[in-house]
Amino acid sequence: MANIKDVAKLANVSVATVSRVINNKGYVNEHTKELVMQAIKELNYVPNEIARSLYRKSSKIIGIIIPDLKNEFFNDMISGVEEVILQHGYKTMLCTSRESLEREKEYLQIFSTHKIDGLILCSNSPDIASYTNLDIPIVALDRIISKDIPSITSDNYMGGILAANRLMVANCVNIVQFRGPKTLSPANERSNGFLHTLHQHSNLNVHTVELEFTPESITDIHNFLQAHPEIDGIFAASDIIAANCIRCLKKLGRDVPQNIKIIGYDNTSICEFMDPTLSTIAQPIVSMGEIAAETLFKLINNEPIEQMHISLPVRLIERESTK
Amino acid sequence: MANIKDVAKLANVSVATVSRVINNKGYVNEHTKELVMQAIKELNYVPNEIARSLYRKSSKIIGIIIPDLKNEFFNDMISGVEEVILQHGYKTMLCTSRESLEREKEYLQIFSTHKIDGLILCSNSPDIASYTNLDIPIVALDRIISKDIPSITSDNYMGGILAANRLMVANCVNIVQFRGPKTLSPANERSNGFLHTLHQHSNLNVHTVELEFTPESITDIHNFLQAHPEIDGIFAASDIIAANCIRCLKKLGRDVPQNIKIIGYDNTSICEFMDPTLSTIAQPIVSMGEIAAETLFKLINNEPIEQMHISLPVRLIERESTK
Repeated sequence: MANIKDVAKLANVSVATVSRVINNKGYVNEHTKELVMQAIKELNYVPNEIARSLYRKSSKIIGIIIPDLKNEFFNDMISGVEEVILQHGYKTMLCTSRESLEREKEYLQIFSTHKIDGLILCSNSPDIASYTNLDIPIVALDRIISKDIPSITSDNYMGGILAANRLMVANCVNIVQFRGPKTLSPANERSNGFLHTLHQHSNLNVHTVELEFTPESITDIHNFLQAHPEIDGIFAASDIIAANCIRCLKKLGRDVPQNIKIIGYDNTSICEFMDPTLSTIAQPIVSMGEIAAETLFKLINNEPIEQMHISLPVRLIERESTK
Repeated sequence: MANIKDVAKLANVSVATVSRVINNKGYVNEHTKELVMQAIKELNYVPNEIARSLYRKSSKIIGIIIPDLKNEFFNDMISGVEEVILQHGYKTMLCTSRESLEREKEYLQIFSTHKIDGLILCSNSPDIASYTNLDIPIVALDRIISKDIPSITSDNYMGGILAANRLMVANCVNIVQFRGPKTLSPANERSNGFLHTLHQHSNLNVHTVELEFTPESITDIHNFLQAHPEIDGIFAASDIIAANCIRCLKKLGRDVPQNIKIIGYDNTSICEFMDPTLSTIAQPIVSMGEIAAETLFKLINNEPIEQMHISLPVRLIERESTK
């Protein structure tokens, strides 16, 4: 894709002159204007941030939208984002959407007023049009929100496969998946990878229970496990849900990992604190944040993006709960 | 202290007129100006936010500075702050200082540029002058930074007393306090309350180990507990440190609570996940945030503050680790 330098070169003028023409600011004589317009047409050039930023004072602020602060997964990811933002001499404006589209729209208004330079989006309820209307670089983190917006995710489908394989190797046959909400694409991909793998084996009895990521979900977990004493394998949507499974099973007098194997998701700090310690699917959480921020700065600096949608590898971390 | 309404009343003019005089904007005839100036002098009135805000467009943004995102205690507290800010129709601009004075100063510059309406400060390295120069309402949260800046804390000294009493009731005689850094006033107050209580009893053997709130502190904990097999009571600076004590003691083959009692601090989610579950000193974390935000809005709206420094009560939550 042609950039402003290509236009300047072809028209044999300076980049500043091209910028003045594009932004219709400052004096440019009619002949030069004509040359620039011709070059723009010839190269099919679309004016971009760089061009506009020649006339726009940068705020040096990157906006970040996350669902809430009460999630170690997001907090660790944003720490990775912040680290890179700082290295570039920018600051962050962190906003919590609380999954409310209305709140997001209010923040977008603020971002627009304050002329932020870019946006990292980990939102669950994106109104894509509102974001693209902002006309600033955007990177989606932990979810794909549009084919035109670069995204950094981890390989959730593979995460489901790894968990399924581990439970099968442990000879689990009565398996339950406590999965996340269907509105979340990462939860759907994990579930698909998990079920597609298990369904290749007809001897397995597989349950799926959909949970919200709220403290109240422990009641659903307890009720299910009490009603299903035959369960010998659990794949949980998060480490917290897996930790809640261990708590419930202790109350029900069942021995983990002797009678029942459990695999969590994320590899957050709770894994090492649990007794038994918790096996889990590890996402490269901090790296996801770092790469998202690096991708955003490429957009801001008008550098090429090698890959629009980056999916980082996950891995199984074996601890006591699957031994 | 006189406010703009008092001046208006004494000068027998409208508040808007007083504001015009103070800000030297808009037409006011010389006679009226004289009356206003006389009233200002008589009442020893200092122009404040309200007066200036009549001419200043509010950004409806509250700035928040916290040390980092990796602390459930701060995250829960800020959730309380956010809730109240939302109720008032304002938005938040959350910034992490990472205990860097330089970063804080950069954020202050942003706050100043963006004309935020108020600031909640949970910072560890406050350069008070920089903050007060901002000339906006400020509330300190979880620490007292100046006698002139309202603060919301919890009763850390009492937290130390409650922990000391509980360990003595359990007949602990070889006690260690894993305390937080001396640069943090809450950590100092807890330690003072704890030690003053224990020092009233000469039969006790008391150790104090100062720890940073970092994952690496687990090595110091392990080394101390290995070198001191006589320890039978622990007071930890946070629930995470207490949880790390439980992990270390398991590795050392020591039985909690049979041989050794442990009390954490904060009452975060990890308490219920531990095995044994963790006794702790509970701070009213969310309330602290809510009250800080409510106090800030009183300042913004020029309403009276009943109490400059509010210290909320703490309580002991008894779980398995002290049974």
